[in-house]
Amino acid sequence: MTDPFPPPPDGRLGRAREAAAAAGLDALLISPGADLRYLTGYDALPLERLTCLVVPAEGEPFLLVPALEQPAAQASPAGGLGLEITGWSETEDPYAVVAARLPSSLARVGVDNHMWAEKSLTFRDALPGARQELAGSVLNELRIRKTPQEIQALRLAGAAIDRVHSRMGEWLRAGRTEREVGRDIADAMIAEGHVRADFVIVGSGPNSASPHHELSDRVIRPGDPVVVDIGGTTRDGYCSDSTRVYTLGTPPEEFSRLHKVLLGAQIAQTDAVRPGITASDLDAIGRDIISDAGYGPYFIHRTGHGIGLETHEEPYIVAGSSLPLEPGMAFSVEPGIYLPGRYGARIEDIVICTEDGGERLNRTSRGLAALPLLP
Amino acid sequence: MTDPFPPPPDGRLGRAREAAAAAGLDALLISPGADLRYLTGYDALPLERLTCLVVPAEGEPFLLVPALEQPAAQASPAGGLGLEITGWSETEDPYAVVAARLPSSLARVGVDNHMWAEKSLTFRDALPGARQELAGSVLNELRIRKTPQEIQALRLAGAAIDRVHSRMGEWLRAGRTEREVGRDIADAMIAEGHVRADFVIVGSGPNSASPHHELSDRVIRPGDPVVVDIGGTTRDGYCSDSTRVYTLGTPPEEFSRLHKVLLGAQIAQTDAVRPGITASDLDAIGRDIISDAGYGPYFIHRTGHGIGLETHEEPYIVAGSSLPLEPGMAFSVEPGIYLPGRYGARIEDIVICTEDGGERLNRTSRGLAALPLLP
Repeated sequence: MTDPFPPPPDGRLGRAREAAAAAGLDALLISPGADLRYLTGYDALPLERLTCLVVPAEGEPFLLVPALEQPAAQASPAGGLGLEITGWSETEDPYAVVAARLPSSLARVGVDNHMWAEKSLTFRDALPGARQELAGSVLNELRIRKTPQEIQALRLAGAAIDRVHSRMGEWLRAGRTEREVGRDIADAMIAEGHVRADFVIVGSGPNSASPHHELSDRVIRPGDPVVVDIGGTTRDGYCSDSTRVYTLGTPPEEFSRLHKVLLGAQIAQTDAVRPGITASDLDAIGRDIISDAGYGPYFIHRTGHGIGLETHEEPYIVAGSSLPLEPGMAFSVEPGIYLPGRYGARIEDIVICTEDGGERLNRTSRGLAALPLLP
Repeated sequence: MTDPFPPPPDGRLGRAREAAAAAGLDALLISPGADLRYLTGYDALPLERLTCLVVPAEGEPFLLVPALEQPAAQASPAGGLGLEITGWSETEDPYAVVAARLPSSLARVGVDNHMWAEKSLTFRDALPGARQELAGSVLNELRIRKTPQEIQALRLAGAAIDRVHSRMGEWLRAGRTEREVGRDIADAMIAEGHVRADFVIVGSGPNSASPHHELSDRVIRPGDPVVVDIGGTTRDGYCSDSTRVYTLGTPPEEFSRLHKVLLGAQIAQTDAVRPGITASDLDAIGRDIISDAGYGPYFIHRTGHGIGLETHEEPYIVAGSSLPLEPGMAFSVEPGIYLPGRYGARIEDIVICTEDGGERLNRTSRGLAALPLLP
């Protein structure tokens, strides 16, 4: 269902192998998902049949795929990397194929963070001498700092989702259900430059108080605050994610106050992005402002998550993380305040840490956007 | 993005607990996916934050979710099961929460077949005394025989995808790209009763020779054979999957011969479904017919896969499987013949094993469907 992604720049496989060796891992076992796309450009679905990129610390990497996927793998960007692509037939044991090609001295192996247990436990039994660790410990370190090309791809994704938010008045109005509005938004995400709508949250009235509410058959009513949190994947394979708050008619007075506090926190946090500040300190800047206004207990999630080939990846902007931000890191800044059963709000931009500050990739107004009740 | 699924029938959690105990597993750890939907009706996305249904062999099950997902979990069918739903906050360690609530004598634990390694390896370290095995060894045994209600849901899914195939002439014609046709098909899948198009394969001309080809920008030409393999999820949460072969204008002569052989094999296999026949024997019936016609090396995949809450689940109809079919089992019968670089074909129906034979859920014609070149 997805369009083909472009090939990855040269050298990523080599850097992954070097990083694995430096970390003392004898091999990486990479399953379908963002890590496989990052390393090879092959956008495979996770299925019951084993597809696995094997990256030994010594020796050449190879991609093992079910025989019936071999033409698709070969036609993908992975086919242009000079990488061996081997098919296994329906009656072969692909785990034994991998085991036979790895050295018997294998002691530590890095498995893809998203590998299914049915694969990782089968590898555990097929490679009994190897202790499994997470390949993410090596690969996240490569993926966490975006290259200029990746930043440009994220900018385009940000502009695409901004165009959708700027058209919200076309669809969001009283009398329609969240689901009806959500379907129109999803269509517009494709029309505005995504190949896939990854999630569409339209939280109206009391549903705005549930941060991960998606869509319901609730009819949107005059006076409702509406949280719209949307994101998709572009043709480059990079993700967008932006949240804005809309009102239809006059919202409750306290809601406007709450949103003003939240906006102050979100602005302070996006303004504070710079190299050296820790994830924890960035989180605290917003949390303190919200707490000082009396809403502390209602900011029930972290400030943000990294973004790139996945909507959620490293770095996480969360209390307790002493990670210092560095140029090239890309993440969301999205504080929220949720009064259970009543209403809530969240404002979200993607921000890139630059040499001397932060670059916001979402540029639609962060204010409370009053939409007309009727078209 | 998905509509809410209906609640599961009563008693599934209790049966899972009993089956775990009988298998000597001290607990099941179930992550977002089909098993969680089967047991609770909660359709959670797999994300970096831990969501886990814990089913101890002794004691009450509980569902641990990130605090910000708690309203959504409570509002899901899981909220109506009398099941404890507990939220963990951003600065808590949810794995430690689970470990603290399980007995220290834990020796064997069943982890969800689709649990990500970043979760299963963290559980491995948080529960160092417990050997991990696959929860599927217990749950697949429950899910493999469909109840009458599940069979009815699969019938409705089959009828929905049949309506899409019967409208193929509206979209599939020479001069359009596979991707354009695929988008129209995906829209029609929603219009005809799915909540989600899970996959759309339009393999035209030489692309028909790649069994898992999806969509490309290839322009469909007169004389092309076109394999259309499509499936989605209905509002009940059950999946559809059916493949038909279309031609635009006159196909190559050998293609028509190949398709006739394939049709004979597929009919023989669907007619052979009955309790007691093994998966391997059912596979061989089609393989023998195809081999006798000289196409043996070009039938490069198994005959089929089970279907239900997932598109691919137990039972697999594959050589080497001595599993005897039983009433209530639901699976695809989809032999294929693929001549690399030239063309290929596959014909697929979902079949239910009944007390006295098989019930085909897909009823559009299995013949080579000649479409007009122009609308």
